[in-house]
Amino acid sequence: MTAGDTGDLVRVRLDVAYDGTEFHGWAPQPGRRTVAGVLGAGLARLAGPDGASGLTVAGRTDAGVHARGQVCHVDLAGAVWAKFSGTLVRRLAGILPPDLRVMAATPVTPEFDARFSALARRYAYRVSDAPYGVDPLRRHDTLAWPRPLDLAALRATAAGLLGEHDFAAYCRRQPDRSTVRTLLGLDWQREPDGILVATVTADAFCQSMVRSLVGAMLEVGDGRRPPTWPADLLARRERAGEGRVAPAHGLTLVGVDYPDDPRQWAARAALTRRRPR
Amino acid sequence: MTAGDTGDLVRVRLDVAYDGTEFHGWAPQPGRRTVAGVLGAGLARLAGPDGASGLTVAGRTDAGVHARGQVCHVDLAGAVWAKFSGTLVRRLAGILPPDLRVMAATPVTPEFDARFSALARRYAYRVSDAPYGVDPLRRHDTLAWPRPLDLAALRATAAGLLGEHDFAAYCRRQPDRSTVRTLLGLDWQREPDGILVATVTADAFCQSMVRSLVGAMLEVGDGRRPPTWPADLLARRERAGEGRVAPAHGLTLVGVDYPDDPRQWAARAALTRRRPR
Repeated sequence: MTAGDTGDLVRVRLDVAYDGTEFHGWAPQPGRRTVAGVLGAGLARLAGPDGASGLTVAGRTDAGVHARGQVCHVDLAGAVWAKFSGTLVRRLAGILPPDLRVMAATPVTPEFDARFSALARRYAYRVSDAPYGVDPLRRHDTLAWPRPLDLAALRATAAGLLGEHDFAAYCRRQPDRSTVRTLLGLDWQREPDGILVATVTADAFCQSMVRSLVGAMLEVGDGRRPPTWPADLLARRERAGEGRVAPAHGLTLVGVDYPDDPRQWAARAALTRRRPR
Repeated sequence: MTAGDTGDLVRVRLDVAYDGTEFHGWAPQPGRRTVAGVLGAGLARLAGPDGASGLTVAGRTDAGVHARGQVCHVDLAGAVWAKFSGTLVRRLAGILPPDLRVMAATPVTPEFDARFSALARRYAYRVSDAPYGVDPLRRHDTLAWPRPLDLAALRATAAGLLGEHDFAAYCRRQPDRSTVRTLLGLDWQREPDGILVATVTADAFCQSMVRSLVGAMLEVGDGRRPPTWPADLLARRERAGEGRVAPAHGLTLVGVDYPDDPRQWAARAALTRRRPR
């Protein structure tokens, strides 16, 4: 069986970028402009009403959150793929609005599941602590913070948060859903232009988790809380009222990791599905 | 005399950035939102109606053109400077809209003239030739080009354009104004994310000159014209109908150079004023 070919259907991985400003998040909602809604309509326009099915995403971003490395999969009718395989990206560029782009379309085996085969999601949060605020050309994806931030203090917060924990203190509560996650990476850098960027990697995130973590760390960064405070909140294992959720517009999904070997896609998906989430 | 102090007035250099999308260029126009109009109103709100005068800019950008390194000067009443010298940038950040920022405010001697003391202006033009178009988060300052561009061909165009020439072929004609300019630098780079960036430096630019040069070079870059064509147009010394003007939104004023030694500011201004422009 060729990569992508599942009988009459071809599974295709889509690498997607969007400016979240004008989207009510990923998930389809009646009467609202969402990424899945607009992308699904674009695919249907190209492939016909039954030519594209099962659009599935790696990270369901909230309203206002951006993506540069979002990953989806979709099943295309074999005839559709045969017709558009070499031109899909350019054709979608002509159909989709400028705030949503499909950057790559790659045939994969049917075992690839954008959501369940993923090993990790990676987000970046951009903050400017300059007295003037934010460079106007980056104001759509950068938070202006009104006080100076200390890089060393921000970095010191990471140690107590890394690893597997119950992140209930940083998750919007959802009944009967586990809030145990594994934080694989948490790093702050100051870029040459002065912007502070947090890069946060986890096997998966619960809702508003990155923004809650960033909100807590910023209170450490400007000196209002000690570096141990975010880990202390974590230890309570329940939603903490004190922690502010950082605004959506500073957050971008920058990448999703999958096993390099396609033979591992099914095994990873089976493992993820068994977890109580 | 202290730097900045001219009797009752203090001359202040302002380093300014803006997203040109919602501005009708720099120059004040009745009933239109312009950078000078909005910045002047912000300064007046802080300094009082007579507290800020003589707002002068280095590069009068056209409608839709952005700036990250624009430079202006303004004369503030001594009492205004005494009151706000330490907090001017942060106060203006609270007054000005997010698409216009004053990034620095520095007292200078009265010999500093943002326009006439300038040695050179530097612009950057961003182009994406990716099949998907432009990263949605950079679509406001990056042009999507529908055909692949050849970096070597773009670079090959520079040789015939550098130096002092009559750039009439690349200037919007204005009666009795010289179109002789000195092109000091013209370089193309492909950034790690694939974006092509032209950096164009000249002592001064006539209207739409950078966009006309970029428009001509892009026709070379995608193979429709030979690399010598932009220099051939130049040699005609009259406005050429063939050359397309590249859209405004890809263009950003990134910097203005002045003599390092303040004692050179007056001499440079005198020299510039003598030129027939």
